[in-house]
Amino acid sequence: MYTVTVRDHFMIAHSFKGEAFGPAQRLHGATYVVDVEFRRPDLDADGMVVDIGRAGDVLRAVVAGLSYRNLDEEAAFAGRNTTTEFLARHIHDRLADAARSNGLGRDGKALKAIRVTLSESHVARAWYEAPLWPANP
Amino acid sequence: MYTVTVRDHFMIAHSFKGEAFGPAQRLHGATYVVDVEFRRPDLDADGMVVDIGRAGDVLRAVVAGLSYRNLDEEAAFAGRNTTTEFLARHIHDRLADAARSNGLGRDGKALKAIRVTLSESHVARAWYEAPLWPANP
Amino acid sequence: MYTVTVRDHFMIAHSFKGEAFGPAQRLHGATYVVDVEFRRPDLDADGMVVDIGRAGDVLRAVVAGLSYRNLDEEAAFAGRNTTTEFLARHIHDRLADAARSNGLGRDGKALKAIRVTLSESHVARAWYEAPLWPANP
Amino acid sequence: MYTVTVRDHFMIAHSFKGEAFGPAQRLHGATYVVDVEFRRPDLDADGMVVDIGRAGDVLRAVVAGLSYRNLDEEAAFAGRNTTTEFLARHIHDRLADAARSNGLGRDGKALKAIRVTLSESHVARAWYEAPLWPANP
Amino acid sequence: MYTVTVRDHFMIAHSFKGEAFGPAQRLHGATYVVDVEFRRPDLDADGMVVDIGRAGDVLRAVVAGLSYRNLDEEAAFAGRNTTTEFLARHIHDRLADAARSNGLGRDGKALKAIRVTLSESHVARAWYEAPLWPANP
Amino acid sequence: MYTVTVRDHFMIAHSFKGEAFGPAQRLHGATYVVDVEFRRPDLDADGMVVDIGRAGDVLRAVVAGLSYRNLDEEAAFAGRNTTTEFLARHIHDRLADAARSNGLGRDGKALKAIRVTLSESHVARAWYEAPLWPANP
Repeated sequence: MYTVTVRDHFMIAHSFKGEAFGPAQRLHGATYVVDVEFRRPDLDADGMVVDIGRAGDVLRAVVAGLSYRNLDEEAAFAGRNTTTEFLARHIHDRLADAARSNGLGRDGKALKAIRVTLSESHVARAWYEAPLWPANP
Repeated sequence: MYTVTVRDHFMIAHSFKGEAFGPAQRLHGATYVVDVEFRRPDLDADGMVVDIGRAGDVLRAVVAGLSYRNLDEEAAFAGRNTTTEFLARHIHDRLADAARSNGLGRDGKALKAIRVTLSESHVARAWYEAPLWPANP
Repeated sequence: MYTVTVRDHFMIAHSFKGEAFGPAQRLHGATYVVDVEFRRPDLDADGMVVDIGRAGDVLRAVVAGLSYRNLDEEAAFAGRNTTTEFLARHIHDRLADAARSNGLGRDGKALKAIRVTLSESHVARAWYEAPLWPANP
Repeated sequence: MYTVTVRDHFMIAHSFKGEAFGPAQRLHGATYVVDVEFRRPDLDADGMVVDIGRAGDVLRAVVAGLSYRNLDEEAAFAGRNTTTEFLARHIHDRLADAARSNGLGRDGKALKAIRVTLSESHVARAWYEAPLWPANP
Repeated sequence: MYTVTVRDHFMIAHSFKGEAFGPAQRLHGATYVVDVEFRRPDLDADGMVVDIGRAGDVLRAVVAGLSYRNLDEEAAFAGRNTTTEFLARHIHDRLADAARSNGLGRDGKALKAIRVTLSESHVARAWYEAPLWPANP
Repeated sequence: MYTVTVRDHFMIAHSFKGEAFGPAQRLHGATYVVDVEFRRPDLDADGMVVDIGRAGDVLRAVVAGLSYRNLDEEAAFAGRNTTTEFLARHIHDRLADAARSNGLGRDGKALKAIRVTLSESHVARAWYEAPLWPANP
């Protein structure tokens, strides 16, 4: 199995609901460094897993929808705790949609899975990974 | 699959027995940076894989049992080479016990696996990973 | 010259005023990894620049005053842009006060300067540094 | 499952053929930091996954065959794009051959898989991984 | 003193002339991660050392003049060894020119110095630093 | 001013004397990642601050004198606490001696200063720096 990973980042405000979060129930924020890993069993004719330039553009567009925002006020996240693991899946699902609809510039069917890792500090991170196919598991 | 990772570190002395270890047969030591990754197929009602605060406390307690010690003099390691990979499993097994007995503050059954990575320098590291269930494989 | 550096981190929400900030004028947030460097021309009788444990405790107390907060609502920052460089100085000045009043557990006069570096992502950081003496420059 | 990882690096020149590569079609170059991960279900009598010293020597020899070269002029790569993912597999296959022929100084059959990760910058990397057995899949 | 640092990277081919370079006399290449540090004794009215967005744009333009090129064929470097330290100064001088002519979007006179650090691998790096004023030392 | 930095590492056992050290009074150990920075105001005829290969060899020899040892039993350190900052100076002084006696393969007089940074974990490090000339300050 091959993978290629590209990196970006975004900075947001949010708060959490639930006693388990302690002081993180207050409005605060985070920098998330995002690593997206694309998996594929063999290389295409160019010798690539994915067109890194195109993949980076798609990632930038997904990140732009979150960047410099207060996630508590985003309708898409109403009633949800936007934890690191939750956001990893949110970004994953946007990229998986792009891959399945050939939006990464190559035959989306060739890609098998995507992993999205969010690092929130030098001591904590989370990832979400799922196979791309079948498309509606 | 989701994961969340927390980090800590500890500093110990030890020596190895066996020609393969070369100069590391002498008493020396190491700083180990520990990353513990908890795996789970879906999030709990709070949107979390694991309560990071609680997981960090349990990790700190496990690490405290090793920290600032000469492992050659610890009864638990008598007759064993405390290599990086061996210590990764040692820490893994303590954390797996805590998870199985709900010591991480959530339903231990929801967690599927734990990976413990020990980095001993900028050029070498090791990990051990095992499923949490069934509990006595 | 000797230095010793200790690290901590904090997560906050804030917004900026001024066209130069572009989308960062919206409420957002950041994780700041803080490195505090203590400078001293010679070592004390124990062979130390500073008692790292004590220095870490003082840093944790300073960081706790910022952590998990919306800086836009902190009276201390009213009318100020809490940029990375501004926050580096804010933390510096708290630690310098502690050092000058012997709050780091050693003779504060022995320390010559403190540098505080804040990393806000894998691609951007800032620091502030000043001599500790004379105390009111 | 246990793993042990060792690191090395090499610096090469190359160019790519294909519109997807944009400006990287020009002759340019890269530093690749290589992490090789060896996987094994249990430890040997010494408590090791692999003899790190021996593994590092074999890796250095493989890397020496690439280091300080223009890959466009290497017969082994004629007609191929030496992308990061392609080079990860190239190094993987050399190390897998060594492992299968007991060249890593231990019973090669005990190792189950090798993963080779190449980091080409602070924002991009790739890996290739395959099981060692059966030897001719 | 305050500083702000921004990061970018570029990938080039080159070779060196001189016995001291050993195998690096052959055509090879490198990834350089570039950190540019701007120094200033006090903050501007916005609370900034420099407009990070503008500084990043200027850095990207300088890097674009080197990126994906064989430096052996660049007229600007004829007869010179484009070592890491040499390239650090080359980039420094372009940025210093921009700063002196107010090209960073603020009063260039407020900046005191620029340091450019180039990391060529996980084990080697170099920097060049000089005061901005007087402009022709 | 130019600098070039090279990296190595070593692993040792030791203990500290003095209440301020708390549990670190017990025999324990550390991995130290060493970064040595050489400073020079202009480049030599080859375009270099220092011959990196030669500098790396000298650093390796200095590190070999510490590596895989219990520093409590080294005569050179009798009665001293081998703290991170103390060891930074120890290594600095060996390298400064080499530089002054032209042991780095170039005119030692051209180098102005050496800084040695020791990182003992992901959260703590120390450095020592001194000018090379005059030779006996």
